[in-house]
Amino acid sequence: MAISQTTNGVANGAAVSTPVQPAELDASKVVVTLAQELKPIPPATELKFGQVMTDHMMVVSYDPVNGWSTPEIKPYGPLALDPASSCFQYATNVFEGMKAYVGPDGKPRLFRPNKNMDRMAMSAGRVALPPFDTNELLKLIRRLVAIEQRWIPTQKGHSLYIRPTIIGTRSSLGVAASDSAVLYVICSPTGPYFRTGARPINLLAVNETVRAWPGGTGGYKLALNYAPTFKPQQYAAKLGYDQCLWLLGEKITEAGAMNFFVVVQREDGVAECTHHPHQTWTCSRPPLDGTILPGVTRDSILALATAHPSRMVLPNLPTSLRLHVSERELTMPELSAWAADGRLLEAFGVGTAVVVAAVGRIGYQGKDIVLPTHEGGLGPVGRALYERITEIQDGKFQWEDWSVVCE
Amino acid sequence: MAISQTTNGVANGAAVSTPVQPAELDASKVVVTLAQELKPIPPATELKFGQVMTDHMMVVSYDPVNGWSTPEIKPYGPLALDPASSCFQYATNVFEGMKAYVGPDGKPRLFRPNKNMDRMAMSAGRVALPPFDTNELLKLIRRLVAIEQRWIPTQKGHSLYIRPTIIGTRSSLGVAASDSAVLYVICSPTGPYFRTGARPINLLAVNETVRAWPGGTGGYKLALNYAPTFKPQQYAAKLGYDQCLWLLGEKITEAGAMNFFVVVQREDGVAECTHHPHQTWTCSRPPLDGTILPGVTRDSILALATAHPSRMVLPNLPTSLRLHVSERELTMPELSAWAADGRLLEAFGVGTAVVVAAVGRIGYQGKDIVLPTHEGGLGPVGRALYERITEIQDGKFQWEDWSVVCE
Repeated sequence: MAISQTTNGVANGAAVSTPVQPAELDASKVVVTLAQELKPIPPATELKFGQVMTDHMMVVSYDPVNGWSTPEIKPYGPLALDPASSCFQYATNVFEGMKAYVGPDGKPRLFRPNKNMDRMAMSAGRVALPPFDTNELLKLIRRLVAIEQRWIPTQKGHSLYIRPTIIGTRSSLGVAASDSAVLYVICSPTGPYFRTGARPINLLAVNETVRAWPGGTGGYKLALNYAPTFKPQQYAAKLGYDQCLWLLGEKITEAGAMNFFVVVQREDGVAECTHHPHQTWTCSRPPLDGTILPGVTRDSILALATAHPSRMVLPNLPTSLRLHVSERELTMPELSAWAADGRLLEAFGVGTAVVVAAVGRIGYQGKDIVLPTHEGGLGPVGRALYERITEIQDGKFQWEDWSVVCE
Repeated sequence: MAISQTTNGVANGAAVSTPVQPAELDASKVVVTLAQELKPIPPATELKFGQVMTDHMMVVSYDPVNGWSTPEIKPYGPLALDPASSCFQYATNVFEGMKAYVGPDGKPRLFRPNKNMDRMAMSAGRVALPPFDTNELLKLIRRLVAIEQRWIPTQKGHSLYIRPTIIGTRSSLGVAASDSAVLYVICSPTGPYFRTGARPINLLAVNETVRAWPGGTGGYKLALNYAPTFKPQQYAAKLGYDQCLWLLGEKITEAGAMNFFVVVQREDGVAECTHHPHQTWTCSRPPLDGTILPGVTRDSILALATAHPSRMVLPNLPTSLRLHVSERELTMPELSAWAADGRLLEAFGVGTAVVVAAVGRIGYQGKDIVLPTHEGGLGPVGRALYERITEIQDGKFQWEDWSVVCE
């Protein structure tokens, strides 16, 4: 295992053999080995995010001589890896978060899976992991989801969380790119991510520790973006906050592992009509400048909010409400000023795991910025977006080609 | 394996048992299982850094209920880990680089190992891994090195590279600190890190990609600092450079995975006497502001250069040479200006793996800053520091308590 990589070299005096092209990832070759005994499925009410894994996983490996191996769907179990592997030593690891739902037709569905596949290819490229055919990976995921269909919870707000992962397996301590890898997909049935119930989450604004910076890796879904957040997260928890609101100086980047949105009443001639139904609201989130993950939920919310009300009316929002979508820098002084003026209407975090999570207050410089409260947690804009996106995910509302059936 | 952590909870109706305190790391409990068959040791001339591992490794694990397990020294082999483990998903991995040498007394020695132990504890804390007793870990490393003594090469510039590693093993996908871990130590016999021979390495100054940022993790030895460097490193290699010189804007932070030093002739009354033996030279390196790893070799070079010539004379440097040590910000425009004035005398990278590596040229904004050439690569200051530090490491020169015998 610690032997240097063999190459397609020609032995002295041996006949010249045709060089073999490393194999591409090929879903059609998949070998399925079903578990002899299936696990009991815990009641949906007892599910904690990401703790229970399903019966099977998909595993395929890459080495620079042979390329991608035969993909396997097989019983969930441990990976055996050389202790010198790049995934341990140099964090050459990327992942994705996706979810599967059961539609009214009884068929399992994925939500905009191509977005995850494209992002995963970008992430893998950023840490110099071997490239792979994203269409083939998606075929393998769909096959795995179809096999694990019994694990998909059907309760509202529940789903099967899917975690595609690539880890570098070069087993040498020289500081260099991993020329070998294991790509695997594991699944976990899940309910709501936060266990705060209807209580909105509270954020502590943090800039002593910086999560992402220009020229850094915040724009990619890399394992390495997360480890540095745990210590500040523990500190925030000690002070009574659920998550960190990550700052770069005074600029807001992300909320915990979520993209961050605010709904603000705009300054214009009728700005004093704070709760007037004809008011113009601005649904803002920070722009993508390399410090922010290009979230699939973020992109979906942007598209849905933009479509309202001309192309599609969001649930329970009056058609007279003008919702303006903008991508702009958000700073803490702005948030404070908006809150002081009563113009900061909603704040929420979005992501695959949480979908849309209401923010209740934001600790900043020793004080709390307090958001208006709403029954059930989310305000009208956050609630409308949550309802519509989950309807699309569950296959109950058709919107473009966002919901993809696994057969 | 995907079952949620058990706790010291009391079963209904059961007698209350005394709560068990998680065990501390205890080297005296180590269980040694020697390999049945020992590997052949490759000739020192064939060693590539970090590719061949020795016969044994040390492994000990932590869980929040039982604490640290019984440490084991056992045959080198794969680790079996849950695919949901934190080390794969969230990069909760830290490591150290140390070296063992054989002294003239035939006994294996380590170089300032407490510095590595202290830094490892700091690194583990930064990513919220479980704490451990650094003295106990050092005892285990000394024991392992004593067992692996036959693997320590005795040729000049060769040593046994030691890689203590801690990986997070919490097997849950929730984004949170790893409450479980495996700590292991592996060893690899090694010669020179760079295979450029006497040719100095060439650096490409890079600031589109930023390695470390104030408030980031550049001051800790975390696996996650390395993966983002591989893509820029491949780009530098394509342009004919060996490593990246990492910038933050125009400020220099690190060179590849090394701390960076320059030797500059100071501006003063006698500045025109460029090669006068009484000239004052400045041995500068960037200060530790959280963007720079507190290197053990860096610290040692600083101490040795400061000691010259009052407390100890560095090899082959005239006692009349005044070597002034400073910690200051270094910028690329400064380097360019010094080079244009003929005052940039030497540049070198330092670290455990390389010791001291001469820099030949630095690509910056489409041009190369070219350093003076010297026979054998290193200039007089770099050479003197290299010679003295390796004499101390090899136990041939006594200096404070830097060389520690493993018995």
